[in-house]
Amino acid sequence: MINVTLIGTGGMLPLPNRFLSSCLIEYNGKSILIDCGESTQVSLSKGKFSINKIETILITHFHADHVTGLPGLLLSIGNTGRTQPIHIIVPRGAGEIVNSLLVVCGYLPYEVRIFEIRENKPVQFKEIGLNITSIPLIHHINCLGYSFELFLKPHFLPEKAKQLNIPVHLWKFLHNGENVEFENNIITPEMVLGNKREPIKISYVTDTRPNEYINEIIRDSDLFICEGMYGNDEQYEDAVKKKHMLFSEAACIAKDSNVKELWLTHYSPSLKNPEEYIGIARNIFQNTVAGYDLMSKKIIKSE
Amino acid sequence: MINVTLIGTGGMLPLPNRFLSSCLIEYNGKSILIDCGESTQVSLSKGKFSINKIETILITHFHADHVTGLPGLLLSIGNTGRTQPIHIIVPRGAGEIVNSLLVVCGYLPYEVRIFEIRENKPVQFKEIGLNITSIPLIHHINCLGYSFELFLKPHFLPEKAKQLNIPVHLWKFLHNGENVEFENNIITPEMVLGNKREPIKISYVTDTRPNEYINEIIRDSDLFICEGMYGNDEQYEDAVKKKHMLFSEAACIAKDSNVKELWLTHYSPSLKNPEEYIGIARNIFQNTVAGYDLMSKKIIKSE
Repeated sequence: MINVTLIGTGGMLPLPNRFLSSCLIEYNGKSILIDCGESTQVSLSKGKFSINKIETILITHFHADHVTGLPGLLLSIGNTGRTQPIHIIVPRGAGEIVNSLLVVCGYLPYEVRIFEIRENKPVQFKEIGLNITSIPLIHHINCLGYSFELFLKPHFLPEKAKQLNIPVHLWKFLHNGENVEFENNIITPEMVLGNKREPIKISYVTDTRPNEYINEIIRDSDLFICEGMYGNDEQYEDAVKKKHMLFSEAACIAKDSNVKELWLTHYSPSLKNPEEYIGIARNIFQNTVAGYDLMSKKIIKSE
Repeated sequence: MINVTLIGTGGMLPLPNRFLSSCLIEYNGKSILIDCGESTQVSLSKGKFSINKIETILITHFHADHVTGLPGLLLSIGNTGRTQPIHIIVPRGAGEIVNSLLVVCGYLPYEVRIFEIRENKPVQFKEIGLNITSIPLIHHINCLGYSFELFLKPHFLPEKAKQLNIPVHLWKFLHNGENVEFENNIITPEMVLGNKREPIKISYVTDTRPNEYINEIIRDSDLFICEGMYGNDEQYEDAVKKKHMLFSEAACIAKDSNVKELWLTHYSPSLKNPEEYIGIARNIFQNTVAGYDLMSKKIIKSE
């Protein structure tokens, strides 16, 4: 199970009721935060999230609206008594910028480990318990989207284990993929496990024009969170100039990539009521939702 | 007239209903902002203040809770179309830190002029239409308070001008302190102006232990805004260790300095309800008010 929450849904400027775009992904008792603009910690606090569980912060790019909340959040995490390291993953060239921002932090009681994704092609990394793939984007500066896959163990089938008379205390090893020896027989996991399961897949893309990498990497996502900077198709020229997307462009990507659900986020401050334009997106991709701050969903696969 | 507003009243951490400590001083159509922690621009927006009028930002010190809102605010001011320079006044050694923070700003359509107050003694500067005196404070890093004096022109006395038959179109020059020539006589301002008036004086002190400079410089302020990190006198050891002040210490300074009114601000996140301890301060200095976000007052001297 993954729990996904939009911590903020604003682009460029925080509004009194719309914090800057940021997303929290909770899985296996840990959290990943995507982007950390000004006031992210305020919204996390409003949502009563435990900031101490954040192990990794993924930064899409180093425009101020995506990163200036970092020093404050890291200090607040320090105040929780954390001593375990925090990983910050950033696009190429942005490591120095993190260090510039953190100059106001003074002492932090844990290590901050910064990883730059230097390649301008998708990169996979699995160090933090789920598979993350970076998505090269097209913005004014180096910018990345991220796609997450949480691999799910096949279901354990107790009736098969009982048929083989395997004692219950050995079941967990088999479920974890280990062979066990029982009454001089080697029992292998596939003897008691169900079929391979599809991972839970979530993709997050903001601050870009459409590009072919996006459609390829996010394919078949259970949830695709995408910027919808402008609702009205008449703002196409603005979108091209500012390297952002229309609702309709996000919906086209969702449709072409066969995702299950699309959430729009990262609205222009001029877009006061995203619901007004949601029909434009739904005409292209029916299962589109206009995201709002602290909108949350548990994504579960039972099959 | 000066309008003073507490933009935030929190120390260390923003809380969902308490932004980080910051103060806006409006006078003669301009504004001065003191400190700019994370979410300052959100609170300014909630209060419907025109950020484009901010000409000067005074920074008390470079702990994150006082400055990480700077890049976002400067960008938002840029989005209003401003082209006039903004002045940022900072304590010794902090100019480089401003530049570090602004690395995420990219292009700003106006000049940012940074002035470091290098002396460890009070410094006066008058460039921005009112007299500001820095107050050296005692904190973990270089830290300054600020005292503001808005000088008021003597009242113009129309009855005296009429006695002298001075035409109305010459009155404004006399009120501005200029001599005028009328019917071969030199008319001097003092012939038509009232008595010299006391300036409006406001003083702002956060993040310090008490010290002798404070009492000396803030003397006779119309309003003294002071940190009250802890309400309970039993937290004296915390206050000393963390170089902050108790409500009672702020009240003692207010009393000793003969100010007219004391506002408490910069509360510890652990101090959920400052009103609970306000009696401790009022026992020492009666005219104490527990500040809250967007508390505002017009300070007018009619005499």
